[in-house]
Amino acid sequence: MNKRKIINDPIYGFVTIPYDIIYDLIEHRWFQRLRRIKQLALTDYVYPGALHTRFHHALGAMHLTGQAIEVLRSKKVDISDEEAEAVAIAILLHDIGHGPFSHALEHTLVNIHHEELSLMFMEQLNREFENKLSIAIQIFNNQYPKKFLYQLISGQLDMDRMDYLSRDSFFTGVAEGVIGHSRIIKMLNVKDNQLCVEEKGLYSIERFLTARHLMYWQVYLHKTVLVAEQMLIQVLKRAKNLAQNNGLSTPSNALNFFLNNDFNQNDLNNQGGEILNQYAELDDADIFSTLKFFKKNEDFALRYLSEGLLNRKLFKIELKNQPFDSDYKDNIRQNVTNYFGEKIDVSNFWLEGKESNTAYTTQKDEIKILLKSGKLVSMSEIDVLNLPKELITKYYLCYPKIFH
Amino acid sequence: MNKRKIINDPIYGFVTIPYDIIYDLIEHRWFQRLRRIKQLALTDYVYPGALHTRFHHALGAMHLTGQAIEVLRSKKVDISDEEAEAVAIAILLHDIGHGPFSHALEHTLVNIHHEELSLMFMEQLNREFENKLSIAIQIFNNQYPKKFLYQLISGQLDMDRMDYLSRDSFFTGVAEGVIGHSRIIKMLNVKDNQLCVEEKGLYSIERFLTARHLMYWQVYLHKTVLVAEQMLIQVLKRAKNLAQNNGLSTPSNALNFFLNNDFNQNDLNNQGGEILNQYAELDDADIFSTLKFFKKNEDFALRYLSEGLLNRKLFKIELKNQPFDSDYKDNIRQNVTNYFGEKIDVSNFWLEGKESNTAYTTQKDEIKILLKSGKLVSMSEIDVLNLPKELITKYYLCYPKIFH
Amino acid sequence: MNKRKIINDPIYGFVTIPYDIIYDLIEHRWFQRLRRIKQLALTDYVYPGALHTRFHHALGAMHLTGQAIEVLRSKKVDISDEEAEAVAIAILLHDIGHGPFSHALEHTLVNIHHEELSLMFMEQLNREFENKLSIAIQIFNNQYPKKFLYQLISGQLDMDRMDYLSRDSFFTGVAEGVIGHSRIIKMLNVKDNQLCVEEKGLYSIERFLTARHLMYWQVYLHKTVLVAEQMLIQVLKRAKNLAQNNGLSTPSNALNFFLNNDFNQNDLNNQGGEILNQYAELDDADIFSTLKFFKKNEDFALRYLSEGLLNRKLFKIELKNQPFDSDYKDNIRQNVTNYFGEKIDVSNFWLEGKESNTAYTTQKDEIKILLKSGKLVSMSEIDVLNLPKELITKYYLCYPKIFH
Amino acid sequence: MNKRKIINDPIYGFVTIPYDIIYDLIEHRWFQRLRRIKQLALTDYVYPGALHTRFHHALGAMHLTGQAIEVLRSKKVDISDEEAEAVAIAILLHDIGHGPFSHALEHTLVNIHHEELSLMFMEQLNREFENKLSIAIQIFNNQYPKKFLYQLISGQLDMDRMDYLSRDSFFTGVAEGVIGHSRIIKMLNVKDNQLCVEEKGLYSIERFLTARHLMYWQVYLHKTVLVAEQMLIQVLKRAKNLAQNNGLSTPSNALNFFLNNDFNQNDLNNQGGEILNQYAELDDADIFSTLKFFKKNEDFALRYLSEGLLNRKLFKIELKNQPFDSDYKDNIRQNVTNYFGEKIDVSNFWLEGKESNTAYTTQKDEIKILLKSGKLVSMSEIDVLNLPKELITKYYLCYPKIFH
Repeated sequence: MNKRKIINDPIYGFVTIPYDIIYDLIEHRWFQRLRRIKQLALTDYVYPGALHTRFHHALGAMHLTGQAIEVLRSKKVDISDEEAEAVAIAILLHDIGHGPFSHALEHTLVNIHHEELSLMFMEQLNREFENKLSIAIQIFNNQYPKKFLYQLISGQLDMDRMDYLSRDSFFTGVAEGVIGHSRIIKMLNVKDNQLCVEEKGLYSIERFLTARHLMYWQVYLHKTVLVAEQMLIQVLKRAKNLAQNNGLSTPSNALNFFLNNDFNQNDLNNQGGEILNQYAELDDADIFSTLKFFKKNEDFALRYLSEGLLNRKLFKIELKNQPFDSDYKDNIRQNVTNYFGEKIDVSNFWLEGKESNTAYTTQKDEIKILLKSGKLVSMSEIDVLNLPKELITKYYLCYPKIFH
Repeated sequence: MNKRKIINDPIYGFVTIPYDIIYDLIEHRWFQRLRRIKQLALTDYVYPGALHTRFHHALGAMHLTGQAIEVLRSKKVDISDEEAEAVAIAILLHDIGHGPFSHALEHTLVNIHHEELSLMFMEQLNREFENKLSIAIQIFNNQYPKKFLYQLISGQLDMDRMDYLSRDSFFTGVAEGVIGHSRIIKMLNVKDNQLCVEEKGLYSIERFLTARHLMYWQVYLHKTVLVAEQMLIQVLKRAKNLAQNNGLSTPSNALNFFLNNDFNQNDLNNQGGEILNQYAELDDADIFSTLKFFKKNEDFALRYLSEGLLNRKLFKIELKNQPFDSDYKDNIRQNVTNYFGEKIDVSNFWLEGKESNTAYTTQKDEIKILLKSGKLVSMSEIDVLNLPKELITKYYLCYPKIFH
Repeated sequence: MNKRKIINDPIYGFVTIPYDIIYDLIEHRWFQRLRRIKQLALTDYVYPGALHTRFHHALGAMHLTGQAIEVLRSKKVDISDEEAEAVAIAILLHDIGHGPFSHALEHTLVNIHHEELSLMFMEQLNREFENKLSIAIQIFNNQYPKKFLYQLISGQLDMDRMDYLSRDSFFTGVAEGVIGHSRIIKMLNVKDNQLCVEEKGLYSIERFLTARHLMYWQVYLHKTVLVAEQMLIQVLKRAKNLAQNNGLSTPSNALNFFLNNDFNQNDLNNQGGEILNQYAELDDADIFSTLKFFKKNEDFALRYLSEGLLNRKLFKIELKNQPFDSDYKDNIRQNVTNYFGEKIDVSNFWLEGKESNTAYTTQKDEIKILLKSGKLVSMSEIDVLNLPKELITKYYLCYPKIFH
Repeated sequence: MNKRKIINDPIYGFVTIPYDIIYDLIEHRWFQRLRRIKQLALTDYVYPGALHTRFHHALGAMHLTGQAIEVLRSKKVDISDEEAEAVAIAILLHDIGHGPFSHALEHTLVNIHHEELSLMFMEQLNREFENKLSIAIQIFNNQYPKKFLYQLISGQLDMDRMDYLSRDSFFTGVAEGVIGHSRIIKMLNVKDNQLCVEEKGLYSIERFLTARHLMYWQVYLHKTVLVAEQMLIQVLKRAKNLAQNNGLSTPSNALNFFLNNDFNQNDLNNQGGEILNQYAELDDADIFSTLKFFKKNEDFALRYLSEGLLNRKLFKIELKNQPFDSDYKDNIRQNVTNYFGEKIDVSNFWLEGKESNTAYTTQKDEIKILLKSGKLVSMSEIDVLNLPKELITKYYLCYPKIFH
């Protein structure tokens, strides 16, 4: 059977399955699950085209990684066939530990970082696939001697970011987010075991970073997306509370498993198998069918939040560059409390927090530029560029639209 | 409150909400439901980008309709503001009666054409909106004197097709499906109360028709899509059988309602309200969470089909231009029966049928061309063009991949 | 020195120079000349973006040919490195014999087919490059045993057409002309020494042919383009007449050489070197600076035509599907004669002719389809397709806009 | 006659002629001349697609201006029909004073700023068009009371920049240069008679500025483009010298006129008519046919430079962030002198200079942002953004590739 299939991708045209094992991994039910997990959670509430999945993203990132490997090899970087396959596996599976509506639900469903779950899945797959994923896992864990392979899949200029920026801007239709991925990849090189970009690619990198900056504010942290995700978190929190104290149960056994327990990294280490199996059952459909189930629940908060989400009747959100004034907050909180009275726990209906973004950090693992002189320097050492501000924080406040 | 919002569309750039009532209709829970109904059902099993929804399509078709109205007005076609608004409403709501995984499930869930359901929804909305949809409904029903307004939303060159061809080729990444919608729209005109295309647009129309032809075979009737949809139909059929005879019940009350009953047009006329309310609860999430529920069911067929669909382990499909030979079919059928024995009803596991497509028909309501001489002729009267073959039929046979 | 340069192409992203000899050929003054010869002559008078050159087209066709070679090799078609390089050279140079404003001027400047001139240039280059072009020339002449290599560069589905349709539709902005070149190339194969397309690519080919059909009528034979090119032909004819009879001389020595002589294929065979050298001096700039020179000439016709072309004051053109009626023509001709009197020779001011196009011919060398059964059939044998009409002819009549 | 023609633009789809007078101006021979003047001079030596003309750019800028006017009007900014037409005229003609290969030749052919020439042309056209351009000229001169109309056509966020960035990135294929022109235009507003951008457009502006930054270094000041333009300047300087001292004459009378004289602003004021008429005769064809004429001239420098340009055998260029060391320069200059001896004046063969770019300046007329609070602030006052470095200077040195 020919496993070198060709898959249509509206961004790159065609993605070719490069190795038989990649085909087999894609066929695996755990990878197929990613078809049911949207990359951008509730972002389609603002950008209706943003329905692409982690499945498609993983294929795309693998495609770009293959191109990068080809470019590096053409520049005499030594990469064996075994390593090329391993890095393809590693990038394909880098997000397999994502659950539905990450990052929103990442710390609500389980208190475990998705990368730990990805690793756990990869290790289990490694057993199923007779240790053929061993090098991929070493690369994923940055334990492989050729560090630049790790940097290809995880770093400030990795193929993960390269694909998701391209993909997210394509499907949202935010044209300004487009980056020159082909050009950047053509400019990649390796020096001193480090992935780097040739000097001629400097301005493409600058553009890449401002694209990321724009996508943060215009898409990833768009205030309507923010408030929808906050409401979803509150639904799950409320449901957890009711499950653990009042015996609430949903039609999804897997979801019930996570509502009834508060798993953390320790639990994963101790009873990983069961957690993994249940986790592998979850996808976006569980969440949405549960919202529909909840909208008829007797608990007012659960009902109110679920119906709001389903019908896109969202809370009001206020966003500022400075923290909100205490009096201002207290006042609103009091109004919410007065309005709803005992029907709700105000902590589910009055949400405050902050969001930060770092389009680029100079604190560690900077992007490296290979000057024409042969010298390797960090991005921030280059005078002519404008790096995005390191850290930008915005403060938000969400609450029901009760005051007209 | 400003209701003239701008919505990003990766195809057209931006779609502007043209009237306040359009904003209010979009906000309605029935229209929001379309966010959860994919335009192309299971087509993403072949084209992973094909996840766009009926919500987005409806907005897009409305956008193109607005452009068409503007072009016609610039050519002195008399269209009042009231009519322009009505036609925008009509195209926006033309698909509101679609359920999850139409067309696959259209005749399995209910035996009612989706256009009848759309009409029913529109009439109910008309009551809620104080009769502001009356003209829109007249246009939708082709009862409005200016027939060309109806042709804009339903015909062989309507804005519905114009958007879905553009949208489906965009999201699948099937570049050859791209049509010159801007150019075609600029060439629209009205003569003798009929929508027509100016002679200069002739070749654009030819391209539009071959694009449709290609999309049929390459996308809409792609054999993998076909087999997945056939399997889904079998799941629902089996579930209906079990629901009505063995008391099967799913977590979705709305779905149960339709599994337990076989509604037809008569029922809709008699007890429309209840049917409509239950129908409005259904979306893609019900189907997928039900598949996950079924995969643990005691019924082998339900389990087998559901798990196959979830993990994309699909039946084998054979496709031919001629009907299959009886002996050939009997043989396979017997093999399937032997293999599974009493665990299944073979009629769920051995599926035969045919699919036809008519990219263009000369049988009725042909596309009209306005010659430079001022004469109006039908597309098929024009010598230089190549119209797609009227009717192409393919025969298929699907059954489990049990013979390796 | 690294000769594997990367060149930006807005259509394909990047084109990489695949061999050192390709770089050297591109650097040659004869190939650089193609930078100054527009692909579509005066088409920018209708589509202002259509300014792309034969230089860019040659690079693009070479790029696609490289992709095709890669696809064929992945399907185990035996193509040596030497052959791959040769076919790249052959496609790169296939149009090097084009002069300015071909096809308009092809038979006015010299009565020699541009392919003969291309061959002559290639043979001369072969001498300069120490016979490194020998196989390329064999392929170009269809004298190489592997016929499919010839078919890649010359045939009804060659990489020349593939690039020019893509390029012309891109730069004109005629979106409907877009073809699925990536997909078609991925479907290429070789059977029985013949280039063919796998059955799955059938609809892409259908689209390719209708795209060609559309581009003919919408672009290549657009009536404004037609009339502009006819006027240009008349300028040159008139100039030839004056050069040979009245001693007219232009500032371009190379142009004078061709105005003073009527070279044909025989002359090329006998005195090829001198003809080639002079021909290699010609480009679009000669024509336009000569028009500017002519607009001050004492000859009325030369002045009138040149000024009209420069300022885009074009003749009127009538276009019909049938030949014009004699009386009708005589009448106009008489009017033109009366209007201008003795200032002109009416044969330069009253132009009639016909243009035909064959988007696809079944007469010879049909596109071959490789069925799933392994059988090789011709395009026209396949029932489901709509091939464009074999031959479409239109008749035109051009004359000054003197009657208002 | 219908003058509201539609013109294909590969970037925007279609550009519609908005007013009859615009059609008439486009038809004028002075505007048609812009068809023969490339927007980016010799940039196609690096980016072969960069052949677009000032004609197309002017149409595109007019198109965007029309969109901006529509947006502003929808926000209740008072713009009369007369003003809308005037601003369309002003942007259409803003570059009509460009000569061939500006900016390279701007100060070599004539020592007059192209805007002065544009104004002169507009005034002459105003006389021809019975003063219908009066308001357009007032806007162009920033003498019209509604300053924001001037800002639309000339400023740090004008429609000129918006189009040329879009157009140049499109035709070069430098994908990273793409800007969100549709979005920026939708965010335009007017406050206190000043053009401004609503706060929601902030990140689009940031992207617009980094795009400009990138285009400067990657395209406009690309070192190969730089050296080609420097060589062209030297050809013209040498020719001027020979014309004024040795009686050199070219086949182009208009070019001779400018070689024999050194016109400046004063001359324009005093003898504008004649200068304008001759200037209107010049286009790219004069330069290229003159290079071909020069390559056979007896003057070695003229020959050497012209042939180099025609065949793209360019000087070597060195580029640095700091000025070159005197000794280094003297050494090279001496080598060039030794190599060529008396055949040349070394000042034509050893070129030094510097290029600067200011993607954005805070020194004057900053882009204004309209905060949600209603306050108008300058771009540089906004904390979260990264403005490009104000001024970046690079130093270059060019000389023949004589040392291998």
